[in-house]
Amino acid sequence: MKRKVTLKQIAKELDVSISTVSKALRNSVEISEDTKQKVQAFAKLYNYKPNNIALSLKNRKTNTIGIIIPEIVHHFFSKVIRGVELVANQRGYNVIIGLSNESFAKEVINMEMLANGSIDGFIISLSKETLQLQDYHHFNETINQGMPIVMFDRVVNEIQCDKVIVDDFEGAKNAVEKLIKNECKHIALITTKDYVSVGRLRTQGYLEALKTHGQDLKAELILKLDDNVDYEVNLDALEKEIEQLFKSNSKIDGIFAVNELYALTAMRVAGRLGFRVPDDIQVIGFTDGVLSKHSTPSLSTVSQHAQLMGEKAAGLLIDKLENDHEDETYQTQIIASELIERESTK
Amino acid sequence: MKRKVTLKQIAKELDVSISTVSKALRNSVEISEDTKQKVQAFAKLYNYKPNNIALSLKNRKTNTIGIIIPEIVHHFFSKVIRGVELVANQRGYNVIIGLSNESFAKEVINMEMLANGSIDGFIISLSKETLQLQDYHHFNETINQGMPIVMFDRVVNEIQCDKVIVDDFEGAKNAVEKLIKNECKHIALITTKDYVSVGRLRTQGYLEALKTHGQDLKAELILKLDDNVDYEVNLDALEKEIEQLFKSNSKIDGIFAVNELYALTAMRVAGRLGFRVPDDIQVIGFTDGVLSKHSTPSLSTVSQHAQLMGEKAAGLLIDKLENDHEDETYQTQIIASELIERESTK
Repeated sequence: MKRKVTLKQIAKELDVSISTVSKALRNSVEISEDTKQKVQAFAKLYNYKPNNIALSLKNRKTNTIGIIIPEIVHHFFSKVIRGVELVANQRGYNVIIGLSNESFAKEVINMEMLANGSIDGFIISLSKETLQLQDYHHFNETINQGMPIVMFDRVVNEIQCDKVIVDDFEGAKNAVEKLIKNECKHIALITTKDYVSVGRLRTQGYLEALKTHGQDLKAELILKLDDNVDYEVNLDALEKEIEQLFKSNSKIDGIFAVNELYALTAMRVAGRLGFRVPDDIQVIGFTDGVLSKHSTPSLSTVSQHAQLMGEKAAGLLIDKLENDHEDETYQTQIIASELIERESTK
Repeated sequence: MKRKVTLKQIAKELDVSISTVSKALRNSVEISEDTKQKVQAFAKLYNYKPNNIALSLKNRKTNTIGIIIPEIVHHFFSKVIRGVELVANQRGYNVIIGLSNESFAKEVINMEMLANGSIDGFIISLSKETLQLQDYHHFNETINQGMPIVMFDRVVNEIQCDKVIVDDFEGAKNAVEKLIKNECKHIALITTKDYVSVGRLRTQGYLEALKTHGQDLKAELILKLDDNVDYEVNLDALEKEIEQLFKSNSKIDGIFAVNELYALTAMRVAGRLGFRVPDDIQVIGFTDGVLSKHSTPSLSTVSQHAQLMGEKAAGLLIDKLENDHEDETYQTQIIASELIERESTK
């Protein structure tokens, strides 16, 4: 199969930006005649079809939404998909799903594949690698060509599109304030390294709650884990990290963890070290997965309303698809998180 | 958008079988001249492109595999997808996923959408509604047109294709024999109604184990639940059913449940009624989901090796896609299940 040349390849070959290529192919007045001629000649030579996405949008509506998520074995993402499906089906749209597996290259490949006439628009949560590389050309290229994107949960300012996020900062702050209200004086934070936007925001929420209530920030109470490690498989490694946190800080009486697995593992390690939850140590997690309500003790957690996120994202995308006039404004919908109190807090 | 007429519509309109239409369009000698002329004229009139799938296979290899699963919020299916992804990526294929949501119509729509040039072949687990309706035309049509399908887990004899299944019968039998060996005399079965093939096979395994070991079959020990009900959401309803089972059979000392949710709920209800697990009642589930190992007590269960199922399915499909000569033989690979003993059994 002869592969079509992409905008990105043309840009690289001619050493100009993707946006320049895109504009040149549309004969934009912003681009010099010389550049336009070069770009157009190159595109013709390599059989590049300009505006193929826009064409497919206008002539061949697929009534299909493409979702790209970083991970499939993940309760949060599957609940978001359920929400997208619900609204999509109500409004006569079908849904297909591609996985980036947290890989930048796979994200790009999936987008190119689906954008090529299979779908009308995207709902996307960024892969970790994309967040690390900070390379967003494939999103901007797709948007430039006229295909709408709605991002959820893992979003960045550099991409202008509709977004649906949860109030990670507020949710974390509320959780930590609950621990403070319950008289915890030494609250540990188990979080991820900062490049994942949601982990960073939750960390900031923790810091803000401590500050507001006059508790000192103790760096040794913050455990930042490398979430490129699949701790679901390497539970032992996770337990060791958390055990070390407890052993170095004998006074810990509260834990806020940025996901369910960290929180549950912290409860188990605490139990093994002879602490009682919630009498000696209170624990709050983030994400209301299946484990939280089935664990013993059941886990208090910040629910992100994943299904609602999916519903909102689908609504935003379909509104855009069915809105005839070119609408260049974008909105960010913030879903309020909710602290669900169970047995792991007093 | 003008929709293309499908093989099925032509068949219905002319009151002939899909296979007749398919053969007539290929000018097969098996079909009378009269019928061939009628079919071809109709196809021309409605702009039907004969062999579009086969054409796309030959001329435009997509290197993409389509997966259709009944449910996304389900650990088993997401692990299968992980397995498919793993092998697909190793061998240079991409994966896209469609959901049937247990609906026959959605299964058909997803298949038509993906078969239309987006993918090279399918990996599918049947929706419950399809199993109830026993309408498999969309699979046979796809296979007739030259696009290979591999089915996993929920399969039927009526579709001739490669299949990957777990030994549901043997797995269930082994689990119940373990309970018998552990001196359980009154073993209850919590299962689904019979139309789901895997539920039926697991029920048969339970019956066979009792028979082999000379235990009487007591109908009142078998609870058949309607698994169209989403018990994850309606936990109360599930608890009531199981409570009724315990109350009507005070001697129950063992439980085999055909899925994880039923097994965990049975443990919880048993605890509430004052029984100790495993001292008074031993429990074994089916499917090694996330809950089994994190529950208290942790749940003994029959593991289906979901990821391995996905790997095998992808291997079979890609072998078929890369095998040039027309291979009309099909194989069924059976994956041995494994009893994982945890705290819920002695």
